Amino acid sequence: MDFSASKRIETDSMGAIEVPADRYWGAQTQRSLQYFSIGDDLIPREMIRAFGLLKKAAALVNQQLGQLSEKKAQLIVQAADEVIAGRLDDHFPLRVWQTGSGTQTNMNVNEVIANRAIALAGGVLGSKDPIHPNDDVNCSQSSNDTFPTAMHIAAVEQLHYRLLPEVGRLREALAQKADAFEAIIKVGRTHLMDAVPLTLGQEFSGYVAQIDQALERLRACLPALLELALGGTAVGTGLNSHPRFAVAVAQQIADLTGLSFISAPNKFAALAAHEPIVATSGMLRTLAVALIKIANDLRWLGSGPRCGLAELILPANEPGSSIMPGKVNPTQCEAMTMACVQVLGNDAAIAIAGSQGNFELNVFKPLLIHNLLHSIRLIASASASFTDYLVVGLEPNHAQIQHYLDNALMLVTALNPHIGYDRAAAVAKKAYSERKTLREACLELGFLTAEEFDRWVRPERMLGPAAEP
Amino acid sequence: MDFSASKRIETDSMGAIEVPADRYWGAQTQRSLQYFSIGDDLIPREMIRAFGLLKKAAALVNQQLGQLSEKKAQLIVQAADEVIAGRLDDHFPLRVWQTGSGTQTNMNVNEVIANRAIALAGGVLGSKDPIHPNDDVNCSQSSNDTFPTAMHIAAVEQLHYRLLPEVGRLREALAQKADAFEAIIKVGRTHLMDAVPLTLGQEFSGYVAQIDQALERLRACLPALLELALGGTAVGTGLNSHPRFAVAVAQQIADLTGLSFISAPNKFAALAAHEPIVATSGMLRTLAVALIKIANDLRWLGSGPRCGLAELILPANEPGSSIMPGKVNPTQCEAMTMACVQVLGNDAAIAIAGSQGNFELNVFKPLLIHNLLHSIRLIASASASFTDYLVVGLEPNHAQIQHYLDNALMLVTALNPHIGYDRAAAVAKKAYSERKTLREACLELGFLTAEEFDRWVRPERMLGPAAEP
Amino acid sequence: MDFSASKRIETDSMGAIEVPADRYWGAQTQRSLQYFSIGDDLIPREMIRAFGLLKKAAALVNQQLGQLSEKKAQLIVQAADEVIAGRLDDHFPLRVWQTGSGTQTNMNVNEVIANRAIALAGGVLGSKDPIHPNDDVNCSQSSNDTFPTAMHIAAVEQLHYRLLPEVGRLREALAQKADAFEAIIKVGRTHLMDAVPLTLGQEFSGYVAQIDQALERLRACLPALLELALGGTAVGTGLNSHPRFAVAVAQQIADLTGLSFISAPNKFAALAAHEPIVATSGMLRTLAVALIKIANDLRWLGSGPRCGLAELILPANEPGSSIMPGKVNPTQCEAMTMACVQVLGNDAAIAIAGSQGNFELNVFKPLLIHNLLHSIRLIASASASFTDYLVVGLEPNHAQIQHYLDNALMLVTALNPHIGYDRAAAVAKKAYSERKTLREACLELGFLTAEEFDRWVRPERMLGPAAEP
Amino acid sequence: MDFSASKRIETDSMGAIEVPADRYWGAQTQRSLQYFSIGDDLIPREMIRAFGLLKKAAALVNQQLGQLSEKKAQLIVQAADEVIAGRLDDHFPLRVWQTGSGTQTNMNVNEVIANRAIALAGGVLGSKDPIHPNDDVNCSQSSNDTFPTAMHIAAVEQLHYRLLPEVGRLREALAQKADAFEAIIKVGRTHLMDAVPLTLGQEFSGYVAQIDQALERLRACLPALLELALGGTAVGTGLNSHPRFAVAVAQQIADLTGLSFISAPNKFAALAAHEPIVATSGMLRTLAVALIKIANDLRWLGSGPRCGLAELILPANEPGSSIMPGKVNPTQCEAMTMACVQVLGNDAAIAIAGSQGNFELNVFKPLLIHNLLHSIRLIASASASFTDYLVVGLEPNHAQIQHYLDNALMLVTALNPHIGYDRAAAVAKKAYSERKTLREACLELGFLTAEEFDRWVRPERMLGPAAEP
Repeated sequence: MDFSASKRIETDSMGAIEVPADRYWGAQTQRSLQYFSIGDDLIPREMIRAFGLLKKAAALVNQQLGQLSEKKAQLIVQAADEVIAGRLDDHFPLRVWQTGSGTQTNMNVNEVIANRAIALAGGVLGSKDPIHPNDDVNCSQSSNDTFPTAMHIAAVEQLHYRLLPEVGRLREALAQKADAFEAIIKVGRTHLMDAVPLTLGQEFSGYVAQIDQALERLRACLPALLELALGGTAVGTGLNSHPRFAVAVAQQIADLTGLSFISAPNKFAALAAHEPIVATSGMLRTLAVALIKIANDLRWLGSGPRCGLAELILPANEPGSSIMPGKVNPTQCEAMTMACVQVLGNDAAIAIAGSQGNFELNVFKPLLIHNLLHSIRLIASASASFTDYLVVGLEPNHAQIQHYLDNALMLVTALNPHIGYDRAAAVAKKAYSERKTLREACLELGFLTAEEFDRWVRPERMLGPAAEP
Repeated sequence: MDFSASKRIETDSMGAIEVPADRYWGAQTQRSLQYFSIGDDLIPREMIRAFGLLKKAAALVNQQLGQLSEKKAQLIVQAADEVIAGRLDDHFPLRVWQTGSGTQTNMNVNEVIANRAIALAGGVLGSKDPIHPNDDVNCSQSSNDTFPTAMHIAAVEQLHYRLLPEVGRLREALAQKADAFEAIIKVGRTHLMDAVPLTLGQEFSGYVAQIDQALERLRACLPALLELALGGTAVGTGLNSHPRFAVAVAQQIADLTGLSFISAPNKFAALAAHEPIVATSGMLRTLAVALIKIANDLRWLGSGPRCGLAELILPANEPGSSIMPGKVNPTQCEAMTMACVQVLGNDAAIAIAGSQGNFELNVFKPLLIHNLLHSIRLIASASASFTDYLVVGLEPNHAQIQHYLDNALMLVTALNPHIGYDRAAAVAKKAYSERKTLREACLELGFLTAEEFDRWVRPERMLGPAAEP
Repeated sequence: MDFSASKRIETDSMGAIEVPADRYWGAQTQRSLQYFSIGDDLIPREMIRAFGLLKKAAALVNQQLGQLSEKKAQLIVQAADEVIAGRLDDHFPLRVWQTGSGTQTNMNVNEVIANRAIALAGGVLGSKDPIHPNDDVNCSQSSNDTFPTAMHIAAVEQLHYRLLPEVGRLREALAQKADAFEAIIKVGRTHLMDAVPLTLGQEFSGYVAQIDQALERLRACLPALLELALGGTAVGTGLNSHPRFAVAVAQQIADLTGLSFISAPNKFAALAAHEPIVATSGMLRTLAVALIKIANDLRWLGSGPRCGLAELILPANEPGSSIMPGKVNPTQCEAMTMACVQVLGNDAAIAIAGSQGNFELNVFKPLLIHNLLHSIRLIASASASFTDYLVVGLEPNHAQIQHYLDNALMLVTALNPHIGYDRAAAVAKKAYSERKTLREACLELGFLTAEEFDRWVRPERMLGPAAEP
Repeated sequence: MDFSASKRIETDSMGAIEVPADRYWGAQTQRSLQYFSIGDDLIPREMIRAFGLLKKAAALVNQQLGQLSEKKAQLIVQAADEVIAGRLDDHFPLRVWQTGSGTQTNMNVNEVIANRAIALAGGVLGSKDPIHPNDDVNCSQSSNDTFPTAMHIAAVEQLHYRLLPEVGRLREALAQKADAFEAIIKVGRTHLMDAVPLTLGQEFSGYVAQIDQALERLRACLPALLELALGGTAVGTGLNSHPRFAVAVAQQIADLTGLSFISAPNKFAALAAHEPIVATSGMLRTLAVALIKIANDLRWLGSGPRCGLAELILPANEPGSSIMPGKVNPTQCEAMTMACVQVLGNDAAIAIAGSQGNFELNVFKPLLIHNLLHSIRLIASASASFTDYLVVGLEPNHAQIQHYLDNALMLVTALNPHIGYDRAAAVAKKAYSERKTLREACLELGFLTAEEFDRWVRPERMLGPAAEP
């Protein structure tokens, strides 16, 4: 922003103040810029879009209910459409760290839409004629019900249109690998220690199950987020709103977004508490927990190339060292785990903030939605990268997988029925202490012939319950 | 425990070790006591009970499937029934801070049931005859599938039989107050500042709505917890289990508990990941967030008696100062908010631990269930106290509520249609700066007669949207 | 960024790639842009500056030690000076969510400085002649030692030059109020309930003490942050660095910044662990805890104007409601508590990330410094706003403070020596139940004359220990 | 506790109540038991001991200052000595989840000491003669200054006498291994991928440096904890205390404990804020972060025996599987990481609680000290187990370490000066793709003789900066 440019005067109940001539915002936005020069986190773009939708819906319903003239409503709708489309993003300069009700952002939206509508109507910026930021754009509304409404609209849009599809793509990519790897038998590991075998496909099926559960949990968060506070006005009673406003505006927002929003049954809770946000963050955090486990497994399985586990070959996207062609750092895993740990941090902030409401209002609203949208954005975009640049290109290192399987001492379990526990244990002990294969140890001890050993020690029979007797 | 008492010898694959003669536990429990003398948190009693149920169910199913003789199964069932009833609690001394798979506790249960069964059969403690802790009590099982199974059994039992009813009672007590207070008009507060009025009943209806949502969220956690890992054995493949064991044992546990447990569809995720626990903790934490808000509101509304808000009178349970009869500390609120903050801390530990699985196992299992059961226990019992010793006895302080309402400047809003905004503002300004009532200010300014003022400034008309025009 | 503009070709060991013609970055930066399009958090500007300082210092020392020609060193220094000054900020587009070692940002810096130096020398961008990004700009360095070095430089600069002074200003503003308010006697409150009196100045002295302790704790974090990893190269051994490089470059950085940096005594810990960052975040979080308490006190003391505590009058910066002239929302307190809660969330992420190092490297470095600098920025700027727009303008509401004091029942304590405990209790009980002052109750009961009461009930004698007997 | 036993009557200002005849507690403790039956966490024993010390010190100072007769003081001291020694632990049944000031525990201590003193004097329990719980035991004190004083005494005692020595022992054990392993050259790992070499001793030296820094940070927490609130009484003013009480009682406590306690310079902060506790928890959490890294490294280095990294051999304390003699689960590492994650959770609760003070009091005191002492207890005892049962017994697996080193591709770096970068890269590529050693690849390519290769590829020359040129 260039503040050296020319200025115009805007006014509010505190008096007159200069604003940049080329910006649509008014006096209250300008004051917030001055008094809340804190950090550099702006109210997220997704919230500005949601406010545009809300203001458009309110104008349409106010017109239907006789609260606004058709002319005024149309001007507001036209300006709001520009907000929705992102064409006025440069006019929303306010930070997250402002008043805890988000009033300043609500006024920023009211001022920008009013001035843009005035411009469309050929009026004078700042004149509040023909569109007044409070009386017209904010008609039937209060910051206390608009801001939480925009929070829910933004959250549902981002979850429904962005996060669920991207994580769904990751789920599909993992499921394809589970299928592709279903015949690859490998050593299992518990406590990081060698254990009985399973298939690489079974291992990946666990990841798919984790993601499936996470998606189900996130979808279960939507109903509470689809409930909108609008119509509660200042304290939840709906004072100064039309009795049919709340239900009609929720329906209008549903029509505009294609998402089944309804009016919240209890507006007092909708203003003073934000458990729908806290719960959703809790489920995002639970997905992050799953993704950390998956990303960690993949980078450990890809560790090496010579001195790690090296069961998977990860795609080489960026230059590793120019000396070591095999060195591929698992950078997609690192970006994913960093993003997920950030989601855990964001979630901690959300939980604390959610608990700090008093009486008729919770004044941590900007923080709550800032962190929730941050978490959604991180998981959605990290999942996209992780899918496209890691999971899709994963390849098994057959030789290494077979090497481990051939050397895995606990395969001796298969000999118990044939040579007895004590002899089997002797085989395992000899193999371990002399760094031999079970087969070598067993043959050296003379317990079995090579043919017998090869007939009985078969990992492919250890991948499920015994056959029905 | 008195370790100076007489000893007997127990053995395991590491050799012989002395154990107290009057305890049923065996060698592996004794080694854990020595090597894991860390902190003083014992594996929770609810887990021991769940293990008893699990071992009983497994014995019954093993008998049905021909894996155990009827005699052995009956002895195990008889001993397990004592575990379930809590009669052997002194025989479970192990701490949370042990092996991360909970193997040592699984073995503690196996050893105690085996020795108790041996005692019932008239055998020699430690002889493993006629009941062997591994071959018989642990038949078809592994620590890796039993411990997570017991975690889910314990969590569901405590949620279903304890937490949901106690929080439900709190919900009812709040709903009764919402009804009882529905005609009490009071000043609203946003940003802690005086705002437009609502009823005390409306305020409480918000609390009821918060609890209703929280209960719904917790009930939605149950399906994932009702899925049991049992049948996965060591790594999820079910190696060494009977092909019908997993489904049958889940059904048996369902029959024993009256809760609709089923076999987890993917056992790899069930051993290596614990998102059902993480998600449940997230919802408990969300309930805690709601309870903090409610408890804070109640203690602020009860603050005073002379120098606080003093709109509510809290029951006086314990002696306050012997000098000030009006001094009642809001101690139930304090206990509740402390319990809830602990739940937030427990939740942080659960989330981190949930993310740290590797390959076929997550080795933070004891920590996970310790914290989850702690949170359930705290919220259930704090809700009971809060209901019985605070909410039920809440009384409105009518005089103070009316006093605030009479003085609330924003009631001037009601005069806008009659004397216009500017004169209304003049009334409010005069009232504020001269510390007068709106009525006094308005009459002194001569804008209205007393009769007119009383006709138009009526808070009871400000409690909802305007009447349909 | 406009990617529709003309392009040029840059190369690295993976081959050629197009980059925007008007950007100095090279191939590795461009690949990171493609593969790590995650979220929208850029590596903070403070880190870019720190890298500029580091590269300048390394070039100067490499020249001294004969590793770089004077000509090369001068070109690098000239380009690095532009980085330090912020003139090349548009050339650093990479996100936090990249490789966990920060390699891509180190290469971004190397590439930009190299190409800028090439431009200064009149060469061809991308030619790596006369300055090579690796061989020259990164000479004697590795991402693994440069990134943590830049983390420490950025953290110390921001703490020393920004946070400590701003919080120090807040401390001074609170101390001035403590002095100004030292004679204002007010009711104390414990458990939110009326208690014995203290002065408003004493109350504020507690805030000053909290901030003093916090500043001391933060200063105590500096020594560990002043230790630099540079010289450890890839794994901490210092392979390929000159034996005098580590010490000399730390001294050079100290000279450039005016801050007493030294070479870390153990480079293995400096690469693989980041407890100096975790500890510093812990102390920032502790300061945040103090600021939440202070901000909450101030907004509660300013609550009202008629239906709250109303002992303080907060400055009215922005328009409250146009109807209620007394309504000033405590928005600076809200911004402060939101910023502080974010610091708690950031701290949670930092602690988890700090624990997740493996072997010779912790790969959560970008997350760690992103969150630490975010916390510093939030607390520093929120403190500035809070000081200038809230604390400086705080005024006591003398009438209200006196009103509470006159009505405070626990002043009756002063009568114990004169009329005995039982009669004093009777006074208090009557005053409370009949809503009278202690004085009224006492006179009505006939225990004292008005003169006696006024002589003995004197809050100004209750502000400290009794006089020495 | 057996409540079926006989009862006696105790009284307080609420009236009479039955208490168990064989317990020394009085009416207020009994009421707390009834109204705060929440969870099962008792006020920690360390706090009871600290209260004993405090009451003894107060009695001695009250005697010196003429506030208590010598006879009374001696009786109180005698009873307090029994509390300190732990002989009356069964008389402290109260839970953490009580009033947030800890008043009920202060009264529990007052009641038990009073009744025990009465018993010693041959009086009647409950008679408050010759020792009154309030007037005598609590003389010059308030719950509001005693509870935080006991918090600091308990915290310092546990840090100084327990945690610092135990963690110090761990530091020494790691340092001994760093020395013992100083000549063992091994492959380094960054991003989990093979990197240039270092010695196992260098790796362990990083752990030692981490612990050294952590110990220094914890010692730096002590000065703030050594400041005692005692003498502040109800709100910090010291009302009703002797002017020399505060300083004298802190000196007395210092004498009794051998720890240099002093009187807190600002008592308002000492009652209303607990940043010394929050900061200490932050440093314990930072130590936990270091211990997680160390424990994770050790369990990964010990993973295997055949299919993991297997560079270290961990002591086999408990039976692993009876089949696989080499299977040793890294259970000490698991217990340690679980304990550390719990410390992170406890720390989250502490930070939130620390922020929630209001005016003259923070009412989360029992939660704060419960969690801090829990964290200290866990880290101290987990460190002891970890030292004795893991670190002391660690052995290198020389063969495996050498095997990795022989195969590590990045050793090729050493050939750059001799055969040039391009040929060196060709060697590495061939070795990787054909699964050969560098030596094999290099000889097959004919770039060097075997003698030349062995002369130049020497990991022992790669462990530090080049020799001074």
